[in-house]
Amino acid sequence: MDSTLSAWMMKAQGFDIVAVHFNYGQRTEAKELDAYRKITQELGVIDSYEIDLDFFKQIGASALTDKNIDVPTGGVEEGVPSTYVPFRNGIFLSTASAVAEKHGASALSIGVVEEDSSGYPDCRENFIDAFERAVNLGTKDETNLKIERPLVHLKKSEIVKEALQYSVPLHLTWSCYSNEEAACGVCDSCRLRLNGFMIAGIEDPIKYETRL
Amino acid sequence: MDSTLSAWMMKAQGFDIVAVHFNYGQRTEAKELDAYRKITQELGVIDSYEIDLDFFKQIGASALTDKNIDVPTGGVEEGVPSTYVPFRNGIFLSTASAVAEKHGASALSIGVVEEDSSGYPDCRENFIDAFERAVNLGTKDETNLKIERPLVHLKKSEIVKEALQYSVPLHLTWSCYSNEEAACGVCDSCRLRLNGFMIAGIEDPIKYETRL
Repeated sequence: MDSTLSAWMMKAQGFDIVAVHFNYGQRTEAKELDAYRKITQELGVIDSYEIDLDFFKQIGASALTDKNIDVPTGGVEEGVPSTYVPFRNGIFLSTASAVAEKHGASALSIGVVEEDSSGYPDCRENFIDAFERAVNLGTKDETNLKIERPLVHLKKSEIVKEALQYSVPLHLTWSCYSNEEAACGVCDSCRLRLNGFMIAGIEDPIKYETRL
Repeated sequence: MDSTLSAWMMKAQGFDIVAVHFNYGQRTEAKELDAYRKITQELGVIDSYEIDLDFFKQIGASALTDKNIDVPTGGVEEGVPSTYVPFRNGIFLSTASAVAEKHGASALSIGVVEEDSSGYPDCRENFIDAFERAVNLGTKDETNLKIERPLVHLKKSEIVKEALQYSVPLHLTWSCYSNEEAACGVCDSCRLRLNGFMIAGIEDPIKYETRL
């Protein structure tokens, strides 16, 4: 939902979009890839990269990439949860930066949300700022990438409302950490999403196993 | 040669080593993997990751990862050469940082060389500094990684001398961009290496097709 809205916002600003998707051995890999393909087809992109990062399974250390660690279902807690994937967004941003440099892009957009989220360190705006500085020092002098993070200070309910504003196909988006058929409704990501829809006063169009 | 010396220097400082190798679709992938295995066996490591980054071939845009772009053999020139792989070290560092965070490591070492090199932007010390800041903001609060770059200000001849000092098995290292049997001797990497040995007054123990 977040990446999708962020792509729609960039397109509305007039950018041509080169879309980048990551398969990283997450539990819902197949579902997310399917969602990506439908979403980018609806958005209209000038190029698309489906990138396999199988090594995330080798590293593990997260409930999303190691099936021996259960996805928590008891509600969002304080601190960094077990679904945190070590430096995931750093790896995503580095890889997308290489794609961006190849295409001579001027901006790279990521749907990170800082406050109203699971407390992942790689979703903080100060990290994005520091990464932007690093990538511009570590690439060619003619590469000047602005790392856009249009959702970083939005609440989930604001994301839902903005998504409607931009006619984002929310029915195609997927947030659940666990399931690929009906969303579980109880993982942190489902809870944050459902809560956002509830506060926005809008019905979430996707199917849930449980709605608390 | 550079990564190997940097690993030996870290070990000499008392660090336990978790080694990380990347197969990134480079021309000499098989040879480098073989070298990595022999070198880490000789070094002694507490863990080893062989990580496949096949997507570098999807991105291409470099003579190392796209066989339609020739590896230059005419000598090191000014500017960023065609062997530059977009943000390669950024991707390597991000991935290695995830491994480091998993292991609770306090340092991550990379064998970048700034001045006496091919002019790659991702080998500059200001990039390493900026990346170090980014990774510490984008990982858990308890993760504090120092990015060590012990060779960054050395000349190639100093690297050769230091390597002898530390009894680094130079005969196991590989630098050639093109060949896997005998090093070509004429790509930038062979030229920089041979020149370093020549200035140091030491014979390079590996086999070359051509020695200028």
